[in-house]
Amino acid sequence: MAHNISVYKWGSMMEHNLPHTIALLTGTPAVLDELLRELPESWSSRNEGENTWNAFDVVGHLIHGERTDWMPRARMVLHFGETRTFDPFDRFGHVRESQGKSLGELLDEFARLRSENLRELRALNLTQTDLARRGRHPALGVVTLSELLATWAIHDLTHLHQISRIMAHQYREAVGPWSKYLGVLQCAGHSSS
Amino acid sequence: MAHNISVYKWGSMMEHNLPHTIALLTGTPAVLDELLRELPESWSSRNEGENTWNAFDVVGHLIHGERTDWMPRARMVLHFGETRTFDPFDRFGHVRESQGKSLGELLDEFARLRSENLRELRALNLTQTDLARRGRHPALGVVTLSELLATWAIHDLTHLHQISRIMAHQYREAVGPWSKYLGVLQCAGHSSS
Repeated sequence: MAHNISVYKWGSMMEHNLPHTIALLTGTPAVLDELLRELPESWSSRNEGENTWNAFDVVGHLIHGERTDWMPRARMVLHFGETRTFDPFDRFGHVRESQGKSLGELLDEFARLRSENLRELRALNLTQTDLARRGRHPALGVVTLSELLATWAIHDLTHLHQISRIMAHQYREAVGPWSKYLGVLQCAGHSSS
Repeated sequence: MAHNISVYKWGSMMEHNLPHTIALLTGTPAVLDELLRELPESWSSRNEGENTWNAFDVVGHLIHGERTDWMPRARMVLHFGETRTFDPFDRFGHVRESQGKSLGELLDEFARLRSENLRELRALNLTQTDLARRGRHPALGVVTLSELLATWAIHDLTHLHQISRIMAHQYREAVGPWSKYLGVLQCAGHSSS
C-alpha cells in the first residue's frame, strides 16, 4: 500500500491549527481561478436545475462571506464575546452584488477580499487564549473563535466540492454507462453554506 | 436572482463537446497544484480512515489513469473498435508507482503526462464520426469514444470532489457545531474511480 495509508485512523482528526487554516484559506482564490477562469462559459453558467446555483453564484456567495461573515464575526467575538449575537448570514446576499459582473471580475474580487481579510487575521496575532474565546451564533448558540476560523476553511472546501458536482452534472448524459462509476454523479447535493 | 439562474433546466445537460472537454482536462493539473502543493502535509497525507485514500493517493491514481486508461483506450477504439476489449483498469495500480515520491513530484508528473496526452488527443483531429466509434469495456460493454473522453473529464471532477471531502474530514471536529451546515461533511463518500 502507499507509504502513508493507514497511518491515521478514524477519530484522529486534526485539531484546529491556525497556520494550517490560513494556508488553506490562502490557496482557495487561485484554485477557483485555475478551475473556472479559462473554461467555456457553459461549464460555469449552468446549474443543477431550478433554484440551484451555478459556479458563478458560488463565487458570489464566497465574496459575500468575505464581506459580511468571517472576519466581521471574528471581530465580534474578540470585542463582545457572548454578549452580542452574530448577524444572521444572508445566503442570497450575493445575488444583487454579483449582478452584471463577469465571472473574471468576481474571481478578482474574491482574491482581493480574501487577501485583505487574511492580512487582518494575521495581524491579530491570535493566541490560544484568543482562539478559545466564545461568541454567540444566532442558531447554533455558543461557538468559539477557533471553530469559526476552522469553519471558514471548510466552507471553502464545501463549495469546491459543490462546484465540482455542479460541473460534473453537465456531462451526466455525455458519459453514458460510466455514470455509475463516477462518485461525483452519485452525490446527493448536500452542499449548503 | 443572479443573471443566469434558471436559464437551464434539468434535462438540458450539455452534449459532449470535445473542445469543452479538453478545456477542463487542461486545467486540472494547475487546480490540484494550487490546492495541494503549498499546503502543510497534514492536509494532504491524512485519509478518511482505514483503506481510504489521501490526496497523495488520489494524485497517484490520476497519474496511473494518464498512463494506462484514457489515451490507451482511445487508441484501442480507433484501431480495433468493438473487436477488442479494453484492459481492466487497476484501481491500485498507482500504489507501487507512487512509492517513495513526494507530492510535489507526483504533481509534476501528472502535469507532464496530462500535457502529453492532450497533445496527442488534439493531434488526432477527431471528427464527429470518430467520436461515435465504439469500443468494448470489460464491464460496461459497448461504449463510444465520445463517452470515454467525457468520462475522462468527469473523472477529474470526481477526484476533485473527493479530495475536497478528504481534506474537510480532517476538521470534522474542529468546526464544532457548524458541522451540520457544511455540505461536504455530509457527503457519504461515493467517490470511486
